[in-house]
Amino acid sequence: MPKGVPEALEALDGVELVRPGRDGFAEAARTAEILVTTRWDAGWIGPSLRWVQAVSTGYDQFDLDALRREEVVLTTARGVHGPQMAEHVFGLLLALSRGIGVSMREAERANWRPRSAVEIGGRTMAILGLGSVGEEIARRAVAWGIDVVGTKRRPEVYQGVARQVWGADGTLEACRAADIVVSVLPGGDDTARTVGPAELEAIGAGWLISVGRGSVVDESALVPALDDGDLLGAGLDVFENEPLDPGSPLWSHPRVVLTPHMGGFSEEYGPRLAGIVTANLAAHRGGGEWVNRVV
Amino acid sequence: MPKGVPEALEALDGVELVRPGRDGFAEAARTAEILVTTRWDAGWIGPSLRWVQAVSTGYDQFDLDALRREEVVLTTARGVHGPQMAEHVFGLLLALSRGIGVSMREAERANWRPRSAVEIGGRTMAILGLGSVGEEIARRAVAWGIDVVGTKRRPEVYQGVARQVWGADGTLEACRAADIVVSVLPGGDDTARTVGPAELEAIGAGWLISVGRGSVVDESALVPALDDGDLLGAGLDVFENEPLDPGSPLWSHPRVVLTPHMGGFSEEYGPRLAGIVTANLAAHRGGGEWVNRVV
Repeated sequence: MPKGVPEALEALDGVELVRPGRDGFAEAARTAEILVTTRWDAGWIGPSLRWVQAVSTGYDQFDLDALRREEVVLTTARGVHGPQMAEHVFGLLLALSRGIGVSMREAERANWRPRSAVEIGGRTMAILGLGSVGEEIARRAVAWGIDVVGTKRRPEVYQGVARQVWGADGTLEACRAADIVVSVLPGGDDTARTVGPAELEAIGAGWLISVGRGSVVDESALVPALDDGDLLGAGLDVFENEPLDPGSPLWSHPRVVLTPHMGGFSEEYGPRLAGIVTANLAAHRGGGEWVNRVV
Repeated sequence: MPKGVPEALEALDGVELVRPGRDGFAEAARTAEILVTTRWDAGWIGPSLRWVQAVSTGYDQFDLDALRREEVVLTTARGVHGPQMAEHVFGLLLALSRGIGVSMREAERANWRPRSAVEIGGRTMAILGLGSVGEEIARRAVAWGIDVVGTKRRPEVYQGVARQVWGADGTLEACRAADIVVSVLPGGDDTARTVGPAELEAIGAGWLISVGRGSVVDESALVPALDDGDLLGAGLDVFENEPLDPGSPLWSHPRVVLTPHMGGFSEEYGPRLAGIVTANLAAHRGGGEWVNRVV
């Protein structure tokens, strides 16, 4: 459970919080009325269960039919990750565009070496995965005079600030249109190596920012694109293997800025999730509207 | 002359561009109709001079009375530095708040070490020096849900997005109100060591970003504030002595993110200045309104 979440839940009125470890969850679930969880197992639907609050934006792990059958409500944490992820994306991007990453490498050797720096205002950003996190990025970009396009599994339902939205089959076109490509795609077979040699070439003299899952970017194509291609830089928070292999050339590459999978970190995470749970607790008790209800 | 500016001016129609070196400027000024310059000397007002385009936002160096007497127009470059400086400020700030700076130090040793990261949205930012550059920062901050206050030499003429603006004597109050303090103050006796021990203590558990002039921040007070005080971090593009002394503890401090005085760098600088000069050239020829006219 992310830092701050149990503390925030414990502060809620009229709730007896049980915190079983990984092994005790099935046992605890048998008598629970409410489950707050990231993982899921169909066996966890006990006789008292009425509501499952997912601690994730996605809900692929849940068996929606089984929950419907047992009349159990499912709500997600959609919205709790967006602000910090969006700030992380711009942090990585500006560390590249303003020469901050490479200056920090030089700083470790006390080297004063000014380099070129460029502006992101007026550029075009393609966001691969225009869900709730992607939209937080898009809104900040548009507010700063950046033109936003992107992709989404179901582009026809998109409602947001991006100028143009393609389906997953428009990824290459999105990369061609953009100076800045941001991946917030989830992991899984559907998205594996979505950003490969062709996409990296399509970005051209631009930047790649990867904060979704590491499997989305083909790392074996990334270093050649930086060394022999036009790619100006890569800002990476996620990797094909984590922790990143000590022998990876990404660690020391002057055009790479990297952080160890911490884009989702935030002190506001717990309070924000608690806000959703509080609202849903009221709905569960018959006193309000459900937030992020799926089933 | 900043990179790209001569190239942009050379492309203007109907202008014969002369580029004297430092020593040849007085000689060249005698016959010039237009001067594009950062420096100024009253002796440069020749018989043909009609217009001086300053390559700076400030114009303290110019003798306004002498220019008025000789009916010479003075225009400034106000607006050309703002966008890149604003992006640099957020780059330094997010490198601190998102743990990017310290991750880059660790990357040089191939260390995977996630640390805490926090959000800047919802915080309060104090901008010391709410001029045209400060306002570019303020607008981006407000667009991201940051509350903005600040100081200005003449707060009574302020027109912008900041919620509250004090005079220079309100610096301590501004630091107390803020989680993020950004100095874009110019150099000079008036602003020397504006951010000293008391101001750093007033910031408390927050961040200091310094991109104006290095003389504004008392560096001897900064390291103790980071080590023994509450200050969370400092993002520095300017220093009391530049290049920064190889022995300075700032180079390797884990709570410091630094760049070698490059906040003003931008490929858009030249084109932006050329845009102002083009408009003013039309005005000079009687065909339009002056931009940034002072005299």
